[in-house]
Order: sequence, then structure tokens, then C-alpha cells
Amino acid sequence: MTLDEADMDALSHIVGIEHVVRGAGLARLERGIDPENFGSSLVVRPGTVAEVQAIVRWCAERAVSIVPLGGRTGLSGGGASHEGQVSVLMDRLDRVLRVSPFGDYAVVESGATLGAVEAALAPHGLSAGINLSARDSCTIGGLVANNAGGMESFRNGTMRQRVLGLEAVLPDGSLFEDLTVVLKTNAGYDLKHLFIGSEGTLGLITKVALKLTPVRQSFATFLLSFGDTRSAQALVSAARRATHFEVLRCEAMWRRHFVETCELLELDALGRFGEAGEVFLILELGAPGTNSGDADASGAIFALCEGLQSFVDGLELKSEREVREVWRVREDWAIDRRYPNGLWFDVSICPDEIDAYLARVAEDLARLDPALRLYAIGHLADANLHVTVNADVDLAALKPRIEACVYRGIRETGGCFSAEHGIGTAKKHALAEQVSPAKLDMMRKIKRALDPQNIMNPGKVVD
Amino acid sequence: MTLDEADMDALSHIVGIEHVVRGAGLARLERGIDPENFGSSLVVRPGTVAEVQAIVRWCAERAVSIVPLGGRTGLSGGGASHEGQVSVLMDRLDRVLRVSPFGDYAVVESGATLGAVEAALAPHGLSAGINLSARDSCTIGGLVANNAGGMESFRNGTMRQRVLGLEAVLPDGSLFEDLTVVLKTNAGYDLKHLFIGSEGTLGLITKVALKLTPVRQSFATFLLSFGDTRSAQALVSAARRATHFEVLRCEAMWRRHFVETCELLELDALGRFGEAGEVFLILELGAPGTNSGDADASGAIFALCEGLQSFVDGLELKSEREVREVWRVREDWAIDRRYPNGLWFDVSICPDEIDAYLARVAEDLARLDPALRLYAIGHLADANLHVTVNADVDLAALKPRIEACVYRGIRETGGCFSAEHGIGTAKKHALAEQVSPAKLDMMRKIKRALDPQNIMNPGKVVD
Repeated sequence: MTLDEADMDALSHIVGIEHVVRGAGLARLERGIDPENFGSSLVVRPGTVAEVQAIVRWCAERAVSIVPLGGRTGLSGGGASHEGQVSVLMDRLDRVLRVSPFGDYAVVESGATLGAVEAALAPHGLSAGINLSARDSCTIGGLVANNAGGMESFRNGTMRQRVLGLEAVLPDGSLFEDLTVVLKTNAGYDLKHLFIGSEGTLGLITKVALKLTPVRQSFATFLLSFGDTRSAQALVSAARRATHFEVLRCEAMWRRHFVETCELLELDALGRFGEAGEVFLILELGAPGTNSGDADASGAIFALCEGLQSFVDGLELKSEREVREVWRVREDWAIDRRYPNGLWFDVSICPDEIDAYLARVAEDLARLDPALRLYAIGHLADANLHVTVNADVDLAALKPRIEACVYRGIRETGGCFSAEHGIGTAKKHALAEQVSPAKLDMMRKIKRALDPQNIMNPGKVVD
Repeated sequence: MTLDEADMDALSHIVGIEHVVRGAGLARLERGIDPENFGSSLVVRPGTVAEVQAIVRWCAERAVSIVPLGGRTGLSGGGASHEGQVSVLMDRLDRVLRVSPFGDYAVVESGATLGAVEAALAPHGLSAGINLSARDSCTIGGLVANNAGGMESFRNGTMRQRVLGLEAVLPDGSLFEDLTVVLKTNAGYDLKHLFIGSEGTLGLITKVALKLTPVRQSFATFLLSFGDTRSAQALVSAARRATHFEVLRCEAMWRRHFVETCELLELDALGRFGEAGEVFLILELGAPGTNSGDADASGAIFALCEGLQSFVDGLELKSEREVREVWRVREDWAIDRRYPNGLWFDVSICPDEIDAYLARVAEDLARLDPALRLYAIGHLADANLHVTVNADVDLAALKPRIEACVYRGIRETGGCFSAEHGIGTAKKHALAEQVSPAKLDMMRKIKRALDPQNIMNPGKVVD
């Protein structure tokens, strides 16, 4: 179906005509990562929860489907829409409603960006405990709907572990109110966890109670290189067990990513560092509050390294410039610019299996086509790898076989083919192959039971 | 319906005749806390997951309902059964299948007791990160099904945060296989969280992958007393932000519990300690691994205390005997023996509101009947209170009004009427009043969609 001018009037009546955005108005809104984010050509921007409910009720009565939009930074097509749908942009629901520095919780509207929430928490020395590169665009609602991860999950959990309570508008317009600010809640099925990671297919998240954690001050950053992943993991594990400091971040880059990114960014000094290593680790240490850190930390880290057979080399990065350069190697997408048609994967690997996994995938890819190049970076303590397969040729034809290579064996060893980027439309076919049939069947039954008209972000995650 | 001898033969064929327990055999099994735990007069003890599936399929074909049993230590009637049902006792599925000290995870069968799992982890210096007084009886499956909490939740999470993956037999006998050993999993709806806390009403948990945490060595225990809860909370919060040690446990007892328990247990020295305080805190400090602790910890704790207006008195407990006595005051149920007909409650309170909440409940109870006596202990950092209302008279007639007193206002301020003991049968009526109608409606829809015959622990949690 298509929506006509009478429909626009009805929606304008709910949110105000200036918040029904079409045509030229849309061009002024940031479309975000996915070109199909504004595929509906109609973005409605509610300003209150009651308006969200009214929009959903209006849509439910007409079986018009709804696509929620947060910061439009999703990587799996969860915000994609088409003509006849209503995209509901949550950016006007962006208030930080309450911060309790005493109780270490905050209640925020779902359209607030992570950056804005962190700015409101900073004066209290508190953080939402989640950190990823989209921080200034991504919204809390989007983070929750996608159960976002990032670089601090190993110590603070993913978004799921940061949510204490949640409010959402259901597919019939009714309000799911479960805005608890406490950890211990056993009041029947804990359905907030069903919304977390459901990518807007079960309801539209309107408010979130977040668990806060004291901000940690970083006081030392190291760049360490190892002959294998297992040694890098062992170092992180030992460092996490040490007293007197905390591991704040532990990001790994495997050889090809590290060396080629250094080349592309012309970071010669770093490139030379990489001559012998297979795995490169950025290890950042910190301490809570204003603690200035432990003078012995460096000695402790290198003592741990020397005890590992495959430790190759290590630097403590003393200047801000050095720290910035090392993080550029991790976060700059130079490789992706070099190979714009690469295939990205986001997998969790059984922590005991990372070396074996990467070796096996490299072998399988080489057998498939010697031109294929495997790159990997990862959140090491979570065993979450971002794997990219690149080549100078078009990979579209090989995609199914490459995907099979990358996913093979992950599930059997307790990993997961989809770690932190969600399913959206991009990984629906893989989902059907990678989870147990009983789980898929349960997902379908739940989706049908809760959204019988299939109007909440249809076509995403599960059919 | 009642089951006949042909049914017994069929069940014996599945699990072996010696594992279909009735009559005299039942008398030899520990019945556990709830007298109705063996109400079915029929306990079947499967030895493999395939046997669990066969039992469930057999029951599903006949619409016979199933009541899962773990350690029978539940406090809300989740294991209660009646004639015509099949109680499925999971105690034979008790293997620790895998421990990865490198990856900090373990995979166990659900019938293993927490104590047995901890014993298997101890040689590796690891723990499942959950601790409660039923540790030697309660099973991992029961802990997961009830999302158990306990004294370490504030730092390790409740059971929900300890589960990395899960396997369960569904109401049609099919197997939900989601036994991931990694934190980051976004493979569609994260349905393991639906089983966690569902008290056996959606499926029978057979295996669990647990996240492990290094064992912490306790090195100092304090008994501190304060004029109000807020100061005790502030102390815990400051101590948790300190470096060089970790808060392992922080259990609170309010005046009446503390003083009367000391009297009942004839702990005179402790009783005298309590003369001025309103809130008594057991604070236990520790450090990871073999670290012997921080000699300055005591000075640091008392410096923090002296900065708090309502700090009354404090002791560092130097001998094992002192530590044991203080924990007896917390864990011995002397008050419950004194008042065997007391009403127990298990609530999470908005951390900003505990003093106001307890004062208001005491006032309301006094208005209801001056003979009513309010007792409270709690897991302070979780704002989880175990509240008991006692009197020398029978409280049955007053129960609904007492319950209304205790629950009033909790939800509005972001707390939860049910923190860690679950719903079972005991709190079903309260659940209906204390959660949003939309949540209750969702629970019912999910239960019906996943268990259309209502054979999985029917009558518990939700109808």
C-alpha cells in the first residue's frame, strides 16, 4: 500500500506538521550508513511517548508497518525501509530524565545519543559503561535494540548488561512499562531482555534505565606484539587478574591488518614494530576515579610478557601522539577504503580456538581463491573478531562460499556467527543456517504472538 | 487425569525402572523446602538429555504436565506438584562437562549442584561467581530457572549475567541448543534470557555454559554501624571505588534484626555493639588471586566512615570466631524460629529510597496493628531487602493488607516487588498487581505460543 495526503494529515495531527518529514526535508536529515534508511520517504518524529503510542495505534489500525530509527549507524540494515512504511525517528525523545550518582543509575529517553548521555554523566564521574566509535551519533534506543558491544564489553558487559529497566511501545500501541532501576528483578519473564537485541521487531523502545559505572582514568597504553593469539590472550587474562590497575581496553589486530594499515597511513615507525609479530595488542590500563595509576604497571606488564613464550616486542606509548597513532591503526578504516568491496564479518569465537580458527579460515580461503585476503581485528577479551575478506576482484559471486568458510565450525565450538552488529536484513539468511531450528521456530512463534500483523520492522531478523 | 501402571511402564522404559520413583522410594529422597515438592507422588530421574526429550514427548502426547525439580530449595513454590503430574528430577544430569581456565567458562549439566561445580572450579582458582546459602543443595538448572541472586550479585551479576549459553528441552520435546561460551551473541532474539527466570514454565534446562570469575581471597571483615541506611550505602559505594582492594560482600541488617538475633543467639558482645546504630553492615574486603590484601585497607575504611555524618561505630573483626559470629547474626534464622508464622518478602528498592521506604512501611504497619514487628536484612549494594513481618498472633487474616503495605510505592520509584526468590505459586497474585498489564499480557501470549498445551510447570508464574 502507499500512503496518501489524508494519511499525512493524520500523522501531522499526531506529531505536528513540521515533524512529518518528506521530500526536501528528508534531504536535510542525516541518512546514516545504510542508503535505504529513508527508503520509506517518510520520517515521523514524535516528541512524546504518547505520540509514539498514537503513531503505532494509527499504523496498527491500517496495518501500516513501522521502521524505528535511532542514530542510523547500524551495520546490518535494521533501519532500511521502503515506500508505504512509516520510519519513526526517535531523535526528539532525547532527554536525560534522571541521574542518580548515589544509586549509580540514570533514566534516559531512547533518542538520546550515547555522547549526550555520557556528557550528562561526566560531571558525576560516571559512565554508561559502553564505548564504540559511533558514540556521537548512535542513540541509547538503538544500542539497546541492537545489544551493542564495543570495546568495554569484557568488563562492563554488552548493552544488555547495562540496562536496568526499559519502557517500550508494543505493536498494538500499548505501553510496556518496566522501568526498574535495580539489578534484581524477578517479576515473571524478564521481557526487557526480549526487546534488547530484537532490532525493533517487537516494539519501539522509548525509555531506558541504565546502570552506571565510575569513569576510569587511563594511565598507560602499551603496544605489544606476539607470535600467536593465545599468548596475547594469556597476557590480557593475567593483566586482568593483577591488582592495583584495571585493563580498560585490549584490542587486537592481526598481522595483515596492522602492517597494511601502517603502510596505508604511512606510519613507518609502527610498521617497523610489526616485523616479527603475528598479533598486535593495544593494552590500555587505568584506575577508578582520580587515581593516577600505578608506577609499577609497566614493569608488571613486561614481566608478564617475558613469561610468555611467543612474546615478540612491546612498547609503552609515552606521548599522546604515539597513543593516537596506535589507535588510528585500530580504528581508521584505511583497509576498507583500499578494498571497498570487501566482505565484513563479526563473529565471536570460542576463546580457546582463535588461532586455530584464523588459520583454518585462511587455508580455506586460499583454497577457494588465492587472491582472497583475510584481515582481522578484534575485541580480544571477548573473543569477538571483526574479520574482513578482501580482494581486488568483485566478491559477489564468491560471497556464499566465503561466508561458509568464515562461519564454519563457529557454532560447534561455542562461538556465534553474529557477535555485536545484529541481524537486520544482512544476516537473515545466515541466521536461518546458524542457529538451532528450535530457536528459529521459537523466534517465529514469539514474533507472531506479539506482532500478529507483522507491522514492527517487518522483514528484519525473522520472518 | 491420573497415571496408571501402563504409564509407569512407559516411563520406566525411558529412564529405567529404578529411576521412576514412587511410594517408599520417594520417602528416601530429600523433599526439600516445599512440602508439595513431591505432590505428584511420581519422580522421574532422566540420565541423559535424550531421556529428558523422550519424557517430555511422552507427556506432550498425553497432555500430561511436567514439573521440573532441581535442588528443591526454591522459596516460592516453583517445584510444587499434584497427582497426575510428572516431577522430573534432574539430579542424575550432574556432570561438569568442560572447564576452560584459559577461556574462563565452564559447561555443566543442569542437575549439578552449585557446590559440586565450585569444587570442580576451585583447583583452577575460578568460581561461577554466585554464592548463596543453599549452595550445596541448589542445582545450576534451578539457579538459572530462578535467576538466583545472593550476596555477590552486585559485583558478578545475578545468575542471568553468569549464563553464557544454555540448552533446554522445549514443551514439544525438541531441543533448544544455544550453548555458546562467549559473551557477545546477537543471533536473533536472545531466547536464553527467556528461560532464565521463567521457573521451568517454558522448558526444561539441560545444560548451561557459565562465565567464570577468579576466586577472590577475603582479607578483612568489618562490622560497621550507622544511624541511617544512606550512610551505609555511601560507605559501600566509596569502598567499591577505592583501589587496592575489592568489596566482596556488604550485607546489611537493620536494628531490630541485629539486636534481637544477638539476644536470641546470646551473642552479648555483639549485642552491646548495637546500642546506638540503626543499620549494621558486614563489609568483607578481598583481592584477586593469592594477593594477601592491603595493610592500609582498615585505615582506608575507617577514614571513609569518619567522613560520614551518621557513622556510629565500627570493628575490624580480627579472629575467625568473631567473623563467624557476625555471619551467624546475618544467616541464622533465629528470628524466624522465634516467629514461625512470619510473612517473608523479597524486594528491590530504588537505592535512593531505602530509608524512606523502611520508615514508611514501619509506620503503615503500626497503623494496621501495633503488634506487627518489621525486620529487615539486605544485600545492600543491590538494594535488595529481605523484609519480614512478625507478630505473636496469626497473620493470615492480615496478610493481604500487610502485603499491600510492603509493596506500596516500590514500583513507582523503580524498585521491584520480587527481587531474587521468584514467583512460583506464592507470588502469582502479587505479580498480577505489580507489573504493567502490557507485560502480563505479553507473558501470557508467549506462554501460550510456546507451550500451547500448558504442560510445562503449569500454574506457576503466569496463567
